[in-house]
Amino acid sequence: MVTLDFNKMNGLIPAIVQDYKTYEVLMLGFMNPEAWAATLSTGKATFYSRTRKALWVKGQTSGHLQIVKEIRIDCDDDTILLLVEQIGGAACHIGYRSCFFKKIEDGAVQIIGKPVFNPREVYHK
Amino acid sequence: MVTLDFNKMNGLIPAIVQDYKTYEVLMLGFMNPEAWAATLSTGKATFYSRTRKALWVKGQTSGHLQIVKEIRIDCDDDTILLLVEQIGGAACHIGYRSCFFKKIEDGAVQIIGKPVFNPREVYHK
Repeated sequence: MVTLDFNKMNGLIPAIVQDYKTYEVLMLGFMNPEAWAATLSTGKATFYSRTRKALWVKGQTSGHLQIVKEIRIDCDDDTILLLVEQIGGAACHIGYRSCFFKKIEDGAVQIIGKPVFNPREVYHK
Repeated sequence: MVTLDFNKMNGLIPAIVQDYKTYEVLMLGFMNPEAWAATLSTGKATFYSRTRKALWVKGQTSGHLQIVKEIRIDCDDDTILLLVEQIGGAACHIGYRSCFFKKIEDGAVQIIGKPVFNPREVYHK
């Protein structure tokens, strides 16, 4: 397996997720060695949830899986870039296509884009 | 100023840098509150170097500055996305356009792309 440098950040590495066709950045997650191995072996983007302190297959609850089309690593072997097919059309847990739906303009936050799904319907909360 | 959540990672937030025209992901850096304020006020991508433990204006040595064209933040206010104009055509300190010039294929690393500059000429090392 390709060796990455997990030492810089207490066993975690940031992983950028980008749409493989539009190149839109969808989200950023963190991987521990287990999440990295699972991503490589299953072809589904898998992260380590810092909040839940557990492995997290992206889309396991919502069905909005990320199918890995290409994997790149950076010059220092300490950052991952995944190019994925986003199932369900949205990566963000509150329904937007990308988690980066807030733009800073003149010091204020502006919402860009529209939600693709209603989180209440998807997560049944 | 827009408030970000610097608490999750000991005062640092990951910042993804993307080419504002091609949407190619160029690099990932980390910002502390000072780097974030400097990026907003100067319009030049500024990070916190974990290695040097100091503020780091990207391109200050090489001349390969990143001019910020758009700033986005994510749903949780804990990740930054910068869309930039990459001066000099290359973001990576070893001469490649993007730091993500290594692709994982069948468990092995393949180099994609060609260096834009020779680091020895740029850094005079």
